[in-house]
Amino acid sequence: MTNDLLLRNVRPMGTAALDLLIREGRIVVLEPGLQAPGIAEEDGRGLLALPGFVEAHTHLDKSLWGMGWRRHQAGPRLIDKIETERRLKKEWDIDPARQSARQLVQSLRMGTTAIRTHVDVDDAVRLAGMEGVLLTRDGYADVMDMEIVVFPQSGLMIRPGVAALMEEAMRMGGDIVGGLDPCGIDRDPKGHLDVVFGLAEAFGKPVDIHLHEPGQLGAFSLELIIERTRALGMQGQVTVSHAFCLGDPDPALVKPLLEAIAELDIAIATTAPASRPVPSAQILRQMGIRLCAGSDGIRDTWGPYGNADMLERAMLLGLRNNFRRDEDVELALDICTRGGAEVMALQDYGLQPGCWADLVLVDAETVAEAVAARPSRALVVKHGRVVVRDGAALIEAP
Amino acid sequence: MTNDLLLRNVRPMGTAALDLLIREGRIVVLEPGLQAPGIAEEDGRGLLALPGFVEAHTHLDKSLWGMGWRRHQAGPRLIDKIETERRLKKEWDIDPARQSARQLVQSLRMGTTAIRTHVDVDDAVRLAGMEGVLLTRDGYADVMDMEIVVFPQSGLMIRPGVAALMEEAMRMGGDIVGGLDPCGIDRDPKGHLDVVFGLAEAFGKPVDIHLHEPGQLGAFSLELIIERTRALGMQGQVTVSHAFCLGDPDPALVKPLLEAIAELDIAIATTAPASRPVPSAQILRQMGIRLCAGSDGIRDTWGPYGNADMLERAMLLGLRNNFRRDEDVELALDICTRGGAEVMALQDYGLQPGCWADLVLVDAETVAEAVAARPSRALVVKHGRVVVRDGAALIEAP
Ligand SMILES: [Zn+2]
Ligand SMILES: [Zn+2]
Repeated sequence: MTNDLLLRNVRPMGTAALDLLIREGRIVVLEPGLQAPGIAEEDGRGLLALPGFVEAHTHLDKSLWGMGWRRHQAGPRLIDKIETERRLKKEWDIDPARQSARQLVQSLRMGTTAIRTHVDVDDAVRLAGMEGVLLTRDGYADVMDMEIVVFPQSGLMIRPGVAALMEEAMRMGGDIVGGLDPCGIDRDPKGHLDVVFGLAEAFGKPVDIHLHEPGQLGAFSLELIIERTRALGMQGQVTVSHAFCLGDPDPALVKPLLEAIAELDIAIATTAPASRPVPSAQILRQMGIRLCAGSDGIRDTWGPYGNADMLERAMLLGLRNNFRRDEDVELALDICTRGGAEVMALQDYGLQPGCWADLVLVDAETVAEAVAARPSRALVVKHGRVVVRDGAALIEAP
Repeated sequence: MTNDLLLRNVRPMGTAALDLLIREGRIVVLEPGLQAPGIAEEDGRGLLALPGFVEAHTHLDKSLWGMGWRRHQAGPRLIDKIETERRLKKEWDIDPARQSARQLVQSLRMGTTAIRTHVDVDDAVRLAGMEGVLLTRDGYADVMDMEIVVFPQSGLMIRPGVAALMEEAMRMGGDIVGGLDPCGIDRDPKGHLDVVFGLAEAFGKPVDIHLHEPGQLGAFSLELIIERTRALGMQGQVTVSHAFCLGDPDPALVKPLLEAIAELDIAIATTAPASRPVPSAQILRQMGIRLCAGSDGIRDTWGPYGNADMLERAMLLGLRNNFRRDEDVELALDICTRGGAEVMALQDYGLQPGCWADLVLVDAETVAEAVAARPSRALVVKHGRVVVRDGAALIEAP
């Protein structure tokens, strides 16, 4: 595997067709009519080339992908879903190694080349999720960049021993300290956030906190996150996932939060849900706030939807934010590519010379058409290696 | 073309596998191990069989399908979109006959077997849209049921001559009298609705009114529609499309409207948009209010999205209404099938003996999986005739 490739006749981001020379997994030069004797060639057939998609918020350890259809059992509240999942993980043998590998390969098939995944650490599964996802990360390291968030899905203060398990998970290879609804689930926002930020400080690692709490309650939790980010000098090191409170219609509630978020370079991760208020993608971008997107759970005990297609996620972002103009639809895809790369701090990401050759070819005239039509992935390249051809992964899933 | 068919080994709505005998376009019997010598057979390979999908709100006359990618030009307001469309219809030669046929074939390819389309009648295109769509309706009558709503897209009171053109369009073959934002666009709700309901009375035809007006304004227009429905005895003959005002968070505004709508058997058509408040599908169903769904404009000058896939529309309905349980996801598909059939008053619709053999085969275990996964259409049958095989239409588009 030399990871050298001459990719002929592609249109990066919809420009005129040119050739793209890849050496040792990186883009070296883009221009028409390249010659590179002795290097493998691919005919890009004038297809649109996009940078590899970035799945910036998902849960690889608990997808049911490939396990057959399972009827949804959880009740409507967040806590119902947490309790149901704890039970079904055992009953259904949702093996984190196998399931994370299956979802990873599906992601790859849809053109995703980097994933930030939250991995459950709790008093039931303990470190089994970490062990499984670490196996997958190692096994597929050639074809997927992966960040692991150590995630106290069942709570941290209300479950004795979880803080110590999280510490162990960080030692095992966790990249980011996770958190979850400091008020709504843990009923002790100070306690919860002190543990989360304490671990981050101890390990010198970033934070990514699920915040579903709406309105004033979410705003309060977000203020506590902002205070700690400022006090610990963690500018650029904190992500808040969902942040539904930023979709509140009251500007008096939202505006000061957004200003502090911009000042402290806190990033926001969204799934662009249709049924919940969400932070406006356009306002965040205008304020220079980093915004990335993810599928969240895919086909799991929380819900039946999801296919790991970040072009579809871009469409859902576009629909949620009422994006119709081409430049707005392009912004939706930018959130699913460059936005995710910024949040994951991926080095040398993009379609310029010097960047890693992570890219996707699709049959579309323009970026906006790719989002609207979501064509199958004609070719996916990871670090110069062809990993998907004509919609089919060349990498095996268990 | 006898439209006789023995469809072997299919699972209607996810039941056990059985055979389905079709004679003269209708389902005659469903049971395992049928024998029907001399009749053409299809192997259903154990696939899930669903009734043909019903696209209950779209605009066949102005899709850009197949015309290459066109950058979006319209401003953010409703009136910007109307004015931009009037201009581009000429500049881009958006031929209603050609474009309606293209969208129809795409719909068929996705498993839709009945369409209610709104067709623009205004002082610019006059009756050209009607002429084009009527050609398509006739040309494809064998493979698609179609209802035409005569639609004053640019306004009725503010555009002299449109009322007379609508009357002529009804004479040409319009099935339903359309209307649009009586306050917001026409600035004369009484005048607008008197013309719409006057035409309906004169022709003995139903009404289908686009109502984007939100909150109190929409509630006011809806009250006027309710009053006229009651006064004219038009129970069961009125559809309100969108009805965003029914998504208002104030129950004091919404509840009396819903009660009147239920009492008068007014139907609601929705696209389940993510960026606007929408009537709750679950509450409407609980109150016995007929609800159908549609794509609205597909790839047109109003917006870039849409692919005519009613399985995807069911997913969007599910996401919009936060449907996760299988029975709720099944309700989302029911809205896109039986719900549409009720609103279009399709005769003998369904998968029972005696029904027209309009059906779709997909590779899914259950109805909910079909919605979540949206597999390609393995077979689409219209009145017993195979019109789509392995995702490809057997019917030609221009
Ligand atoms: Zn999550
Ligand atoms: Zn419409």
